[in-house]
Amino acid sequence: MSNPEKFIVIGSNCFSGACFVDYVLGENPDSHVTGISRSPEKEDFFLPYISKGQDRFLFHSLNLNIQIEEIVSVIKEVRPDYIVNFSAQGMVAQSWDNPDQWFQTNGMALMNLADRLKEESFLKRFVQISTPEVYGSCSGHITEDAPLNPSTPYAASKACGDLSLIPYHKNFNFPVVFTRATNVYGAHQQLYRIIPRTVIYIKQNKKIQLQGGGKAVKSYIHIRDVCAATLQIARNGKNGEIYHISPDGEGISILGLVSLICAKMGRPLDDCVTMVGERLGQDAFYLIDSNKLRDTLGWVPRIPLEEGIAEVIDWVEENFDSIQKCPLEYIHQP
Amino acid sequence: MSNPEKFIVIGSNCFSGACFVDYVLGENPDSHVTGISRSPEKEDFFLPYISKGQDRFLFHSLNLNIQIEEIVSVIKEVRPDYIVNFSAQGMVAQSWDNPDQWFQTNGMALMNLADRLKEESFLKRFVQISTPEVYGSCSGHITEDAPLNPSTPYAASKACGDLSLIPYHKNFNFPVVFTRATNVYGAHQQLYRIIPRTVIYIKQNKKIQLQGGGKAVKSYIHIRDVCAATLQIARNGKNGEIYHISPDGEGISILGLVSLICAKMGRPLDDCVTMVGERLGQDAFYLIDSNKLRDTLGWVPRIPLEEGIAEVIDWVEENFDSIQKCPLEYIHQP
Repeated sequence: MSNPEKFIVIGSNCFSGACFVDYVLGENPDSHVTGISRSPEKEDFFLPYISKGQDRFLFHSLNLNIQIEEIVSVIKEVRPDYIVNFSAQGMVAQSWDNPDQWFQTNGMALMNLADRLKEESFLKRFVQISTPEVYGSCSGHITEDAPLNPSTPYAASKACGDLSLIPYHKNFNFPVVFTRATNVYGAHQQLYRIIPRTVIYIKQNKKIQLQGGGKAVKSYIHIRDVCAATLQIARNGKNGEIYHISPDGEGISILGLVSLICAKMGRPLDDCVTMVGERLGQDAFYLIDSNKLRDTLGWVPRIPLEEGIAEVIDWVEENFDSIQKCPLEYIHQP
Repeated sequence: MSNPEKFIVIGSNCFSGACFVDYVLGENPDSHVTGISRSPEKEDFFLPYISKGQDRFLFHSLNLNIQIEEIVSVIKEVRPDYIVNFSAQGMVAQSWDNPDQWFQTNGMALMNLADRLKEESFLKRFVQISTPEVYGSCSGHITEDAPLNPSTPYAASKACGDLSLIPYHKNFNFPVVFTRATNVYGAHQQLYRIIPRTVIYIKQNKKIQLQGGGKAVKSYIHIRDVCAATLQIARNGKNGEIYHISPDGEGISILGLVSLICAKMGRPLDDCVTMVGERLGQDAFYLIDSNKLRDTLGWVPRIPLEEGIAEVIDWVEENFDSIQKCPLEYIHQP
């Protein structure tokens, strides 16, 4: 039986957005996806969905901050079942430099979009990609009812975006659900993120800077596990609810993570790292509890960290010529 | 012993701001207050502090949304001990019409201000006037740790403003404290607010519209009680903390409130009211628990509702010629 689901993915150029496009196209052969991002589509090796052919994918380069009317026109023409919004100013440390831009994109633009869509009946779900950073420094196992206590302008702006949608849910039954995943990784990720950057630096014989000695503990989840959760939540989530997405286990220190990559690439750790100071607004470690998602929607993570890291290494190896031509640092676009 | 405290009051033209200026000037004869509001100062009968003489008060007409640099210059020149920020888009129902303006003023502009002041050592306290509307629909007695669950764009924008200051407190010791008071009233209040409007309508033989039959229960606190609390919190509050401000008692229905005013003015209720439908995003009733403020800072409310209402009636009587020349409805300024 055909199941012609229509998706609009806002932020389809970002790592998570592009991987979600790929996942949906692969998971449902009758699906159609419209991608929207402010920049033109990236080079092919960053776009996992390129291999699916583009007959079921259409891309629009539009900026949510300044072209909201055009975006709303696309949405009203497509009449999607699902909108999944990945668009965000995503960098944490950099948010201290231009907090108003983070607030504009992650808060104001999102609220403006919900305001324009609040009475559209075609929409089954609006999935807002949020972040556990909104909780700030916590300890122990954090469930979805933890208080908002942001430590950085990035975290505050994301919390504001989430809060701004709640009145639309309450008063217009706007079908929003929120996802908050731990650190996501995988092939096609931005090169400045810790896992691909570590692989690239090792290949280039450059030292990896470990802030605070790499003692900070994080948890990492493979992007395909996150995509499966996100699709599940889009289809069957309960409106107004927040869903955590997290792997099994108790996390890994940055030092542990880098050690794992070094080992997989056959290089001694000491050759590859150097230690630097703390980051402003660095949150202490806590575990994101994803039992709600597991219990109510039956999701489980499937890809172990070692397997996922091997995949990133393979991706870097295969595309190393192209990757070497790209900037390795974050370049801020307002 | 002289105590030359310096205050900057942002939003000094609004009812609460103007009354706070008056209260400080009266409470501490060695204090100096700089008022900032986007509009020019209002007519004298709206300005309680006018009777104190203006040698200790200086006013600047500046708009936080578009003249932040000028405001920061004033602040850096004055080097106040305390900044108390009353500025906000304050209307609840109207926030549905232009949510982006509420978000801009109540969220973004506030964050921009904190960002500019984050490293100024002269500041002992930044008092942010928040609102219990951030809690949305609750029941029972609400303490300061209740979750943010806004029902309107107004409430969401105020919650966003509060959240945006938290990273500055955490990382720069920015000395912010938050106040959340129940409905404030008193002489000099905006004429469209329920208590003065009711008095004026009764004098003009116009019917007061009671939304939802006036069944909604609210609690009202006199502005001088709020000013005393706010000054106490500015001087002795703990940075990063939220303080509720609420009267004794279990609240009063709008119908009960209007009945009380009718009785005080010697008019039968039925002559004065007419019933209309519900308001979008109307929160159910809950009581704001102010035990934290009472227990830690020793504040108590002193002005009973009957006494406060009599004062509003007197104020309207005394200024009725001027009041009749003013618009009675809210006029929105972006």
